[in-house]
Amino acid sequence: MKTIALITDFGYTDNFVGVVKGVILKNSSGVNIIDITHNVSSHNIQEGAFILLKSYRFFPEKTVFLAVVDPGVGTKRRILAIKTNNYYFIGPDNGILYPAVKDDTIKAAVYLRRQKGNNISLTFHGRDIFAPLAAKLAESEKTIFRGKKVNRITPLNFPRPRLRRRSIIGNILYVDKFGNIVTNITKKDLDKINNGGFVARLNNKTIKKLYRTYSEAPSMQPFFIEGSFGYLEISLSGKSARDYFGLKNSDKIIILRKV
Amino acid sequence: MKTIALITDFGYTDNFVGVVKGVILKNSSGVNIIDITHNVSSHNIQEGAFILLKSYRFFPEKTVFLAVVDPGVGTKRRILAIKTNNYYFIGPDNGILYPAVKDDTIKAAVYLRRQKGNNISLTFHGRDIFAPLAAKLAESEKTIFRGKKVNRITPLNFPRPRLRRRSIIGNILYVDKFGNIVTNITKKDLDKINNGGFVARLNNKTIKKLYRTYSEAPSMQPFFIEGSFGYLEISLSGKSARDYFGLKNSDKIIILRKV
Amino acid sequence: MKTIALITDFGYTDNFVGVVKGVILKNSSGVNIIDITHNVSSHNIQEGAFILLKSYRFFPEKTVFLAVVDPGVGTKRRILAIKTNNYYFIGPDNGILYPAVKDDTIKAAVYLRRQKGNNISLTFHGRDIFAPLAAKLAESEKTIFRGKKVNRITPLNFPRPRLRRRSIIGNILYVDKFGNIVTNITKKDLDKINNGGFVARLNNKTIKKLYRTYSEAPSMQPFFIEGSFGYLEISLSGKSARDYFGLKNSDKIIILRKV
Repeated sequence: MKTIALITDFGYTDNFVGVVKGVILKNSSGVNIIDITHNVSSHNIQEGAFILLKSYRFFPEKTVFLAVVDPGVGTKRRILAIKTNNYYFIGPDNGILYPAVKDDTIKAAVYLRRQKGNNISLTFHGRDIFAPLAAKLAESEKTIFRGKKVNRITPLNFPRPRLRRRSIIGNILYVDKFGNIVTNITKKDLDKINNGGFVARLNNKTIKKLYRTYSEAPSMQPFFIEGSFGYLEISLSGKSARDYFGLKNSDKIIILRKV
Repeated sequence: MKTIALITDFGYTDNFVGVVKGVILKNSSGVNIIDITHNVSSHNIQEGAFILLKSYRFFPEKTVFLAVVDPGVGTKRRILAIKTNNYYFIGPDNGILYPAVKDDTIKAAVYLRRQKGNNISLTFHGRDIFAPLAAKLAESEKTIFRGKKVNRITPLNFPRPRLRRRSIIGNILYVDKFGNIVTNITKKDLDKINNGGFVARLNNKTIKKLYRTYSEAPSMQPFFIEGSFGYLEISLSGKSARDYFGLKNSDKIIILRKV
Repeated sequence: MKTIALITDFGYTDNFVGVVKGVILKNSSGVNIIDITHNVSSHNIQEGAFILLKSYRFFPEKTVFLAVVDPGVGTKRRILAIKTNNYYFIGPDNGILYPAVKDDTIKAAVYLRRQKGNNISLTFHGRDIFAPLAAKLAESEKTIFRGKKVNRITPLNFPRPRLRRRSIIGNILYVDKFGNIVTNITKKDLDKINNGGFVARLNNKTIKKLYRTYSEAPSMQPFFIEGSFGYLEISLSGKSARDYFGLKNSDKIIILRKV
């Protein structure tokens, strides 16, 4: 059974996700629909791209990923279908697919034509355009990928840390539901400057420890841990690190080697 | 594979939805269970009826819809199974099914008897009565619809706008997770009075614009847009319209043609 | 089709649940994955154990339950697979499985070895260890249960009420999304002291009534009702009982027979 995996900013309050699934099943009865998440922050394309990048490889080969964070709905922004080494992706050409398809290597990319019809709204393409296309792709890739190939899709790149001999300046990529702050710094990056210890600063507060597991950390002292996204995360035992640091997404982390 | 689609006010915090699905699978292993939403406001029958009406037609034919917003649980309120032109519906006879089954045309309606047994609670009929019945209906409609037919089910009608030559007085039907305010006024209604412009009032604030897509709207100025429910919605770029207008559900919108 | 039912504290905000499902499907394409809930309070093992105990019996026989509330992730805490009379269970050996497997009678219990590999994180065993094991168990119980049997698993017992001739002192087990307060007192317990009425105290407020259904209760007066978990719940028509009583989880209820 083919899997269609969904990632959107539609939330769980309304019927938006439900009707997308209804339309998929109406067009392709034999698929298995899995939610990656529908709680991407509203209109936050970069967050959607990050979640998709960090999720896709855990799914069965040939899974169709439908990613809809689409502030340009109803405009002339294009709709992409992309075949990579192991998967298929559908979404608006606004960058949301870019990091994942680049990571798995693009084999073919096409723009999808909108169907004509009176029932196509200008405000809910997830239901009226994306869902039928995802179902069609799950049924057969042939009809989808026979069009003219696309050479350049809209890029989206995550900020990269500035690595110096004695310091690192990093960025926040994501904050999870426990309040853990996901940075763009890897443990390897930190190891390079961390001979005799380090001091990190975020919003005038300091982080001095690196632990391997949550249970090693004493209560209420912030620490780094290598998280499941593959980056250093800032965490706190017994409290949300987001709240402790009064975090805004644009905040930067500065790490200095200890002298 | 038959689809059972669920709409309830059970929320996602507890195990209520999970055990309903368990019971369905225990009684009918070959069904596909889809969530429309479980975040209908607690006990809000009209909201559930609205969501069901605006969702059902997007599902495959013969889908069984189980709708449980049921403040009368444990009382003598009746349980309905309804066959319409294309679908099946199960729910309490409190109006929640009415708009949808009327829209798709009722072909048969019966009251369902509660099973007897020690394990029937008085507080969770979703699990103990509705779920087994939905599974039974998904397996075969014959045993369900052979009883005495029901002639009159409890009606539920949404408020309708008052349309005058120079003005419209409309109501709020729904607010979505983005804070968009769904009215009961259609674009056609507005077009009739909108020759040289219009001014709309809601809670002492004004709306003067109608846009086709979200991206046309300048920041922080409220506007109408034809939403995916088929009605005019009041929206705001960059903020929840619900918050901007300090909305209460009983608020009315007044639209006047410009003179 | 085999069912795998999930109960975790992963929430619905991130991609945690989605990738767990991806990994399960990658390892066993023919399973049906059902969410019991992912909103167990973070790290609250007792709450997870309560939900699992009160959910499992509603699922089809041979369902595999994967329960992950796991503050000890990355440490040496063991991983359990348990076969009971009718079901299978996988989870950390921290008590979360205990009440359910005891209730359904343990037939076999084994510790599961972690797979070796570079891709095993120290922070997300749900994805890297538990999900593949659950898929493997759904495929075939033989490879899982041929190891050395475990004699003693970590116990977890819920507090029990103190029953006296003229009084009961009970505890709070759970609060649901409507704000209903689930006690550990059964209706049978109350019946024993309730000849000519009773008075119950919780946080300096009183409860004097027992109703069979929600609709019997007058507005804004707290009452007991026999809830769907099998215990007396404290409820309030028109408001959350949790808010009305200013509830903390450690609060106790005292019930006295009326004299």
